[in-house]
Parts: sequence; structure tokens; C-alpha cells
Amino acid sequence: MPSDAETACFEAGIKFGSLYHQFAGTPVSPESADSLARAMEEAIENQPHCEDVRVDVDEDALRAELADSAADYTELTGRFLVVEMDVDYEGTRVQTRMEMEDGYPLMKLVSVGE
Amino acid sequence: MPSDAETACFEAGIKFGSLYHQFAGTPVSPESADSLARAMEEAIENQPHCEDVRVDVDEDALRAELADSAADYTELTGRFLVVEMDVDYEGTRVQTRMEMEDGYPLMKLVSVGE
Amino acid sequence: MPSDAETACFEAGIKFGSLYHQFAGTPVSPESADSLARAMEEAIENQPHCEDVRVDVDEDALRAELADSAADYTELTGRFLVVEMDVDYEGTRVQTRMEMEDGYPLMKLVSVGE
Amino acid sequence: MPSDAETACFEAGIKFGSLYHQFAGTPVSPESADSLARAMEEAIENQPHCEDVRVDVDEDALRAELADSAADYTELTGRFLVVEMDVDYEGTRVQTRMEMEDGYPLMKLVSVGE
Repeated sequence: MPSDAETACFEAGIKFGSLYHQFAGTPVSPESADSLARAMEEAIENQPHCEDVRVDVDEDALRAELADSAADYTELTGRFLVVEMDVDYEGTRVQTRMEMEDGYPLMKLVSVGE
Repeated sequence: MPSDAETACFEAGIKFGSLYHQFAGTPVSPESADSLARAMEEAIENQPHCEDVRVDVDEDALRAELADSAADYTELTGRFLVVEMDVDYEGTRVQTRMEMEDGYPLMKLVSVGE
Repeated sequence: MPSDAETACFEAGIKFGSLYHQFAGTPVSPESADSLARAMEEAIENQPHCEDVRVDVDEDALRAELADSAADYTELTGRFLVVEMDVDYEGTRVQTRMEMEDGYPLMKLVSVGE
Repeated sequence: MPSDAETACFEAGIKFGSLYHQFAGTPVSPESADSLARAMEEAIENQPHCEDVRVDVDEDALRAELADSAADYTELTGRFLVVEMDVDYEGTRVQTRMEMEDGYPLMKLVSVGE
């Protein structure tokens, strides 16, 4: 039998995979970044055991990318995102974070505990 | 050579397919319906030639579905959506609409004109 | 510090959320079920620590749904899917499974161990 | 009333937007490119009025991208795709194509006719 902590970590992973693959590819600009971030938070907070989701779509990174471009929007991908998520499974709390490391969006467990 | 009206209709179709397949499957509840609708509008309005997008996520239909369910959220699909979109390509305006007809989400051209 | 078992469970969850939210909504029929299942397996097996993915898109369930319908395809959703996935993180193996239970697609840890 | 040619172009656009936003973001490597391309073709060919879809996921472009990378897979995006699609609406045939132009994946009408 998996422990509550292991199940909590599994549940946290599900939320991260869901958030990323549901919304990656969405057309996004500095002007629409905020409504997208709010929708991502509220959508994933619907999922079971999900206590809190905080999404930052990095408008400065979007502006930098678009400055070199003929377009005025791009597709959402990991390099424009910082995400923090708290999951609670049967009293075991898991904190997670996604941010860029060495050019990749890395999803990681920050803490697993009571 | 395709006419401007034909290209305008092609562009309108692209926006509809994008909107539907980007956001279908998103976890949604009556409480999160509004933030999702706003994000869908602003995301698709980024696309070229897209003048205006109006999305209604039908909270009553969501409540009716959830009343028969053990869950408090569901996945976004066509039966919870009414969408209107206006596209303008080189001065040719196309109005489009998606709504349920005979149990299917039908995307259709409402008008094509100057 | 999360244990290797907890990280393995987190990684397994990421794969499940990714698989579901990348592919839910895909147009599918009994005839195209097999190519979709193969693509889902090979796509998710690319992800780190993912040893094996087995996807069954239930053609009988698709046929039953379409028998009551004017359409000859539908959208992929959890009720047409059985998925098994094995993850290995630093020697800790996690087996997971998704199938319908009480009308919902339930993702669960089957075993966590050496 | 929209003409059959205009409706055919609208339908062609829907297929393109669907294909792109359903599958963008999928984990892909040179080894899994072929199963993904086949699944994309068969999925979109389910849609109404869609006669033929030909997807090429460019394995050389994937290899070039991965050569500069610590990872052995990436996310599917327009720069790895060439797509051709034929739509037939009430006898009016539309041919379409997506490929990179000036750094962007451009979807265009190739011909509209009998």
C-alpha cells in the first residue's frame, strides 16, 4: 500500500502534468497573460486535493521574446511560467514548484510533510 | 487565388478549431467558468485578423451536470459553450457562432460580407 | 528532502496528468483508436524516468457510444481509456493505472517499491 | 448565405486549428515522430468533410534541435511540422498547407475549386 505521503506526491504530479499540457500552446501576449494565469489557477484548483495554485506568466519574458519578432503574441511554454502548487492528501501537505533550470521547465517537490 | 472572403472564412475556422482544441478538457466548475471564458476570449483575440471573441461558459448547464454527479467539477466540452467570433481579413468581415444543435457543438458561418 | 519513493510518485503523477490533458479531446473513432493509443504511449515514454506506457483505447466502448449517435467519431475522454504506466526513479519503481471507477477515470498508484 | 466555397474554407480552417492546438506541446523525439504523425492524420480525418491529411514531423529538425540540448525529446511545435490537408464540402475541394515562413508556421489556402 502506498503511504499517504506517496499518494500526496502522486496527486501533486497529476496537477502539474495537467496544468502544463492543458495550457501549453495557448496564444499569449503581455496583455493577455494575466487572464490566462487566473484561469490556469482556478481550473487546476478544481482538481481533488488541490489547495492552492499560483501561476505567474512572465510578462517581461514575453516582451523580450516579442521584441525580436514580427508577431505580437507567442505560444505559452515553460519558459514563460513560474508555478507553485500546494496539495493536501489526508492531512499530508506537499508543496511543489515549476521554474526554469538550465533551459528547461523543471517541476519539483519543495516539501512533503504534515 | 483564393478570394479575400474565402481567406477570411479560412481564418475564422482556424480560430474556432484553436479555441476548441486548446481548451476542451479543462477542469471547470460554476465558480471557475468566468475566468476560463475570459482567458479563452483574450487568448484567441491574439490571433491574426481576430477582431472579437465572446465566450459564454454555461454555468446552469454545469450545475445541472454536477447535480447528478459525485464530483464538483467536470471537463470543458462543447455542450457548456456558446462562442461568437468576428474576423476581419483585408476588410472582409466574417461572423461565426458555435452552439449545440441536435446534441453536437456546431461551428457555423453567420455572415460573410463587407 | 523528499524520498526517492516520493519523487518517483510525483514523476508518475506528472506523466498521468500530461497524457490525459495532452490527448483528451482528440477526435477518435474505432478505426483511429489504435494509432492514437500508439502515439500516446510513445509520446509519454519520452518523458524522464518513464519506463513503459500501455494505452488501451476501448473500441467497444467507442462503438457503443457511436451506435446512439448521428456522428461517426467522438472526443477522447477517460471513459474510453485504460492506461498503465511504470516509472523508475533512481531504482524505485512505481506502477500506476487509470481506469473508470464509479463513472470517473481514476488514476491510482498500484505499487511503490524496489 | 455563405457560398459552398466559403464554407469549405471555414471547414478547412477548423481542421487546421484543431490539429495544431490538439497536438502542440506533445513530447516528441525522432523515434516517436512517426507514430505521432500517423495519429494526427487519422484523428483529424475523422472530422466532417476532411478527405485527406498528410503530416510530416521533421525528424532532421528534431535531431538538430536536440543536438544542442541536454534532453532527448522536445515539445511538438510548428517548426517541426509540415501539414497538407484536403477538404471537400458539397463538391467544392479545398487544398491547404502549413509550413514555416519567416520563422512562423503559416497555414494557407493552396487552392479552392471544383
